[in-house]
Amino acid sequence: MLQSNSMNIIPVIICGGAGTRLWPVSREAFPKPLLKLADGQSLLQKTFLRALNVSKSDEVVIVTNRDTYFLTKDECVEVESNVSRLGFVLEPMARNTAAAIGVAAEVVREQHGPDAIMLVMPADHLIEDEDAFGAAVQHAARSAQEGRLVTFGIRPTAPETGFGYIEYDQAPIEGAEAVHKVMRFVEKPELNVARELVADGRHLWNAGMFCFTAETLLAELEQYAPGVAGPAADAVRTSKRSTSDDGYAVELDAAQFRNAEDISIDYAVMERSDNVNVVPCQMGWSDIGSWQSISDLTPADNRGNRIHGEAELHDVDGCFVRSDERVIGMVGVRDLLVVDTADALLIAARDRAQDVKQIVAKLKKANHDAYRLHRTVHRPWGTYTVLEEGVRFKMKRIVVKPGASLSLQMHHHRSEHWIVVSGCADIVNGDKLISLQPNESTYIPAGHKHRLINPGVMDLVLIEVQCGEYLGEDDIVRFEDVYGRAPAA
Amino acid sequence: MLQSNSMNIIPVIICGGAGTRLWPVSREAFPKPLLKLADGQSLLQKTFLRALNVSKSDEVVIVTNRDTYFLTKDECVEVESNVSRLGFVLEPMARNTAAAIGVAAEVVREQHGPDAIMLVMPADHLIEDEDAFGAAVQHAARSAQEGRLVTFGIRPTAPETGFGYIEYDQAPIEGAEAVHKVMRFVEKPELNVARELVADGRHLWNAGMFCFTAETLLAELEQYAPGVAGPAADAVRTSKRSTSDDGYAVELDAAQFRNAEDISIDYAVMERSDNVNVVPCQMGWSDIGSWQSISDLTPADNRGNRIHGEAELHDVDGCFVRSDERVIGMVGVRDLLVVDTADALLIAARDRAQDVKQIVAKLKKANHDAYRLHRTVHRPWGTYTVLEEGVRFKMKRIVVKPGASLSLQMHHHRSEHWIVVSGCADIVNGDKLISLQPNESTYIPAGHKHRLINPGVMDLVLIEVQCGEYLGEDDIVRFEDVYGRAPAA
Repeated sequence: MLQSNSMNIIPVIICGGAGTRLWPVSREAFPKPLLKLADGQSLLQKTFLRALNVSKSDEVVIVTNRDTYFLTKDECVEVESNVSRLGFVLEPMARNTAAAIGVAAEVVREQHGPDAIMLVMPADHLIEDEDAFGAAVQHAARSAQEGRLVTFGIRPTAPETGFGYIEYDQAPIEGAEAVHKVMRFVEKPELNVARELVADGRHLWNAGMFCFTAETLLAELEQYAPGVAGPAADAVRTSKRSTSDDGYAVELDAAQFRNAEDISIDYAVMERSDNVNVVPCQMGWSDIGSWQSISDLTPADNRGNRIHGEAELHDVDGCFVRSDERVIGMVGVRDLLVVDTADALLIAARDRAQDVKQIVAKLKKANHDAYRLHRTVHRPWGTYTVLEEGVRFKMKRIVVKPGASLSLQMHHHRSEHWIVVSGCADIVNGDKLISLQPNESTYIPAGHKHRLINPGVMDLVLIEVQCGEYLGEDDIVRFEDVYGRAPAA
Repeated sequence: MLQSNSMNIIPVIICGGAGTRLWPVSREAFPKPLLKLADGQSLLQKTFLRALNVSKSDEVVIVTNRDTYFLTKDECVEVESNVSRLGFVLEPMARNTAAAIGVAAEVVREQHGPDAIMLVMPADHLIEDEDAFGAAVQHAARSAQEGRLVTFGIRPTAPETGFGYIEYDQAPIEGAEAVHKVMRFVEKPELNVARELVADGRHLWNAGMFCFTAETLLAELEQYAPGVAGPAADAVRTSKRSTSDDGYAVELDAAQFRNAEDISIDYAVMERSDNVNVVPCQMGWSDIGSWQSISDLTPADNRGNRIHGEAELHDVDGCFVRSDERVIGMVGVRDLLVVDTADALLIAARDRAQDVKQIVAKLKKANHDAYRLHRTVHRPWGTYTVLEEGVRFKMKRIVVKPGASLSLQMHHHRSEHWIVVSGCADIVNGDKLISLQPNESTYIPAGHKHRLINPGVMDLVLIEVQCGEYLGEDDIVRFEDVYGRAPAA
């Protein structure tokens, strides 16, 4: 066991999952890993803490889209601020899991050498039995050390048609009690096939988690998916790097990464290689694939209802309700999933949870904002929430994090009235620098350069009333930006 | 017919109906008559236009709670500004229909003499066939002229258990082809009884509409319900009067009106008197008793859905949806009533529409604002909408009608930032009088006397950000108020 404890395991979290079945909470600009469960922790935060548990070096690598970089980092720091090395690999666009894992492997090999063991974890899954998970990881890591590709297979508890299955050799491989040879991968089956797979005891759910050394993965990728391996290597080689006290960021080169083949790691490598093994697990795993699975996480009351938020029920059974702001009255209904947000509402039959993605597809086709954005939009410096839009005016609540600063900017078409309601603000307004306390205000005329800074140690909350003929977010000229969003001179 | 055309019929609209089955649109401070149908007209407006059609003198008397006076008047003027005499009888508290009709009769007798014919109409019913209604009114008025109490009976189309029934003599009374003697009133029946009543052809629905002279009603009220008649007469005698170009208002004396017995006109007079007659009618009458009956007013699409607002449906049948602001996604559900408002949402099974009142009862018991108020609150001068409340701040959108003015007022605990976004404002701020145009702002410190006036001819829209330790609506000292809301000196 001493050997296993000294293994250098680098957790790699793949932040993906559009989560279209979790609309309206999950959206394109607020993906599934950010979804908060009833205990207040997001799936990403839970995955991050799980990753820290298995990493001896307190290092975690996170692959995510660059648009959600700050949001993702904030989430991690919120649950554990004492991380020594937090590595970000930032994708300029989505290119599926083979490319995401490929660039992570390049970065891990560069930072820790070819024999570093990667533990690849999706950011949007839940694992309840951390001990069982830890034990499985140790078994997988020992095999990975010997040059194997190892995947994790969940012992099925129901004939799920939403997962792929793994058929495995019943006898463990030589010298490794818990690791088995993979015989074949089975794509998402029809229900009758799924029933057979569950019954025969020789099949596991494919959980999308993997363990291998950086070198092993890159060699297999080179052999079976050169269309991924080449662009991944190039994108890392020509990436922009930044480092800070708590880690580093690798911003992949868009021109190179764009060329990577859009293919999953399963298709690209796992189904083609004969070096694939599996650790069968029972660890309370869930992919949180739908509102039904989120509902399952909450104990029901004596009528089978699960309520988060304010609801009055009259003769209601078997319903799941999640409402942040509004009171919901329900009468004489059963087996519904109801999810309420500031600008969109879902009402679905419990047994149709998988079809919520159809709504998102329709909204996307109609180019409706509600498939993409929430009313509250996250920015590197904090958030803004559109409270009201009318003819020639728009109102926002702006929250600026302590020490954060918006860009020095100017709008051609709109003036802005700013009123501080909490915290304190330093404001550049044309040629002047002013400081505002709660209940103080200033006016930024159109055409004036301005900047908003929170010099304090608590959140700055500010109400902004915009007036003008054109109030689009694209009427902004950035002069300086600490987050690199100003155009190059 | 010449005689009938010259009859002096005074329509009396009784504005009541809590409309608890039409929550969340109907609320205590926004009662059922104000509910707007798909064509944009409220039930009150439709009743008002119907009343004008039968009134030869363009006079209409409206009995309503004094809290909804301006709201009710605005509704009427919005659909017909050219009314010569609009009379309001303002109740300080609700005392049921006998008292409401009693005070109206006192006012009508005073204004038009004892023989004036009153046509009493609830403000929250719908009548589709105006011609049939007009004909029935002529028949009723002729009998009323002869000193009879006349009610209107709707030929039943279904065994409704939500209405009372009227049994009538099949032979018309002497000399009046369409008027019949009432044999008895039947209270809301059980379903099996209702089936018998509908089948036997001798029963009509009690529509709560009446016709009689002021003198006849007052005499019957004096005889059968002196506990109503006395206080009603006293409350009118000691009322406060006001007149304007377009009519008058009678503000009943609260100390007197409070003593009136709380009883319906049916119990108080109709079921006791032997002078009661009925005009059987078929005129597309509906009491708009529930969301089901509102749903019935809209044509369904080919899957039986009726949608008002923005909704994406996937495999949905037989649903009624009403949403003002938000997009609603629905999956795999059927036969639901969904009504969405800014701060509350209803989801009910279509066949349980009657039980929506149970939700209201629960909210009322919990003292929840959503049973009483909307997010937008109506005032004599316009409306305000609370857009956001936070720690030590509150934001409102304030809309002031052309020429209207808020009271001269002062707050102890809050300061206010005002930003004009549309229209123009004259503002008293301490000792100063200032004028603001769109995109201009002012600041009202706590303790400063201030007043907001719209001197223009279009709505003034203003954003108010309140800051302070206490932001309750009761922190207001009124010095002068054109609507009589300032305390007497």
